Amino acid sequence: MTATLPDISARIAQRPDVDMVARTAARARNEMLTKPPGALGRLEDLAIWYAGWRGHAAPRVLAPQVIVFAGNHGITGQGVSAFPAEVTAQMVANFQQGGAAINQLARDAAARMDVHALELDRPTEDFTQGPAMSAQDCTAAFDTGWNAVDVTTDLLVVGEMGIGNTTSAAAIAAALLGGSGADWVGRGTGVDDDGLARKAEVVDRGLAANPSRDPLAVLAALGGREIAAMAGAIARARSLRIPVVLDGFICSTAALVLHRVDSDAVAHCLAGHLSAEGAHARLLNAMGLEPLLDLGLRLGEGSGAALAIHIVRAALACHSGMATFDEAGVADG
Amino acid sequence: MTATLPDISARIAQRPDVDMVARTAARARNEMLTKPPGALGRLEDLAIWYAGWRGHAAPRVLAPQVIVFAGNHGITGQGVSAFPAEVTAQMVANFQQGGAAINQLARDAAARMDVHALELDRPTEDFTQGPAMSAQDCTAAFDTGWNAVDVTTDLLVVGEMGIGNTTSAAAIAAALLGGSGADWVGRGTGVDDDGLARKAEVVDRGLAANPSRDPLAVLAALGGREIAAMAGAIARARSLRIPVVLDGFICSTAALVLHRVDSDAVAHCLAGHLSAEGAHARLLNAMGLEPLLDLGLRLGEGSGAALAIHIVRAALACHSGMATFDEAGVADG
Repeated sequence: MTATLPDISARIAQRPDVDMVARTAARARNEMLTKPPGALGRLEDLAIWYAGWRGHAAPRVLAPQVIVFAGNHGITGQGVSAFPAEVTAQMVANFQQGGAAINQLARDAAARMDVHALELDRPTEDFTQGPAMSAQDCTAAFDTGWNAVDVTTDLLVVGEMGIGNTTSAAAIAAALLGGSGADWVGRGTGVDDDGLARKAEVVDRGLAANPSRDPLAVLAALGGREIAAMAGAIARARSLRIPVVLDGFICSTAALVLHRVDSDAVAHCLAGHLSAEGAHARLLNAMGLEPLLDLGLRLGEGSGAALAIHIVRAALACHSGMATFDEAGVADG
Repeated sequence: MTATLPDISARIAQRPDVDMVARTAARARNEMLTKPPGALGRLEDLAIWYAGWRGHAAPRVLAPQVIVFAGNHGITGQGVSAFPAEVTAQMVANFQQGGAAINQLARDAAARMDVHALELDRPTEDFTQGPAMSAQDCTAAFDTGWNAVDVTTDLLVVGEMGIGNTTSAAAIAAALLGGSGADWVGRGTGVDDDGLARKAEVVDRGLAANPSRDPLAVLAALGGREIAAMAGAIARARSLRIPVVLDGFICSTAALVLHRVDSDAVAHCLAGHLSAEGAHARLLNAMGLEPLLDLGLRLGEGSGAALAIHIVRAALACHSGMATFDEAGVADG
């Protein structure tokens, strides 16, 4: 456990275990349902996993919450995005007015949606020159995420918006998993070949300028406020035993920071989808996570994870709603 | 076009085209939405495809329908299933009482669900001895499917239940796409190695006993009533320009029959998921279909397709609900 950011470390350490009694009871129930053994495939694993975290053999998903965090990045001055930095604030306004993709997806999934804009008028520092955030700034952003989770939520999606943040995420992944910028950058919102080369070079300079590889020091040095906030929300969900659906590449780097502090810290997380951002598969693989959906999304905002809410809820609808062989009078093979 | 089953041929020929004006308008709308170009990946393609079939640039999915067809198979006498034939009727009772997986999935997707049991007390003939169905029986089953589609439906899922029907489906696939029984059989509800070998051998004998390779003759000779009914419902949906989500291996062989009559006859169909039944990928590939989900399901009942309703509806929620760059005042890169 790191000592660089003691307040964050202490919060990540609030980690109740899965309820083994509930998980075992859910597994037993699954065996009795009117279907051939294993015929619901991954839905069965999802239901058992969810039941264990919620501490109930036959739960339902009733109160999903989507939280979108937004932050601005000093490295946008280096030309790493196809969009200008002003778009972060413009998109926050779009979230607040209900016009973005995540608004439609959250509503369609009957999920509560909250938006937290993190000091957009105070971008992080350019990490090629030193740390993006001070320990205080990083802790404050983490706390915003921690406090954003509703205690009545029973499935959490965290998403993000922040022009420049695929570069920040690539830098975190490179710092924690090894490799250079070229191994981890992708086209983000759609940069051309020159932009891609620039992103890789910016990451390499960021890695050189910020030599600590302590996970929380990396979060402060290379992260954005929205990434620290997502880490805080994921940690808070764990303290409340709320299962989390991870979104794409950037969200997954927030989980990676927690995973590098302690791999158990993301045991309550599910990979909602595989992003089209090239390095996402390797990132998930490093955490032992298998994505649920693969639809070529590369939007962020929590969009892929919001889609996955439907699959998790459907898995529990089957698990908790189906008749058993005995109840239905069906011969079980 | 075949002449063996003229009533069926005539119905399949009722094939309105996609509305190119609506499709073009939907594509233009997609370009203006507040997201980087292509960032919603497959959701964008789905929305444009659906809009074209519905004849509207910005439609919603409001009235999905799930229809489950059940039939009994003479070949169950050959020991091709892990479950006894009585289970077909028992599961129909389970559908009617709301206890099966598809009941939960249809309810969870806010879809109307109908169940049609097709003469369960009169199984098809054992196709190793000659045709499973007469032309009249096959046409009657096709008509049941044709008439089961509600004209107000705007997204159709067809599913099936029928002990023995993975063997029937494998025989259809082998007859229409080539190869032997061993190339197309799988474990279905869970047969062991001996059962698998028996299924392959039953398919080979069925292929020998029924030499015509005319698609509709194959449907009658090797199909089950539920497969013919699914073909009828898919054809009826096309006549009404209702997009269809295909389910797993068995459902896909119903589409394959139509595809072999005319490849355009399934242009309104989407592959909802990739089943764990081994040959499903090859079957979809033969129709040029790319599955939307891959969750290891092998249940039938329309279960995987019912899950896909959520994805299609979410795609349209984004497409038809999002703000444009102009509306939101967001800079478009």
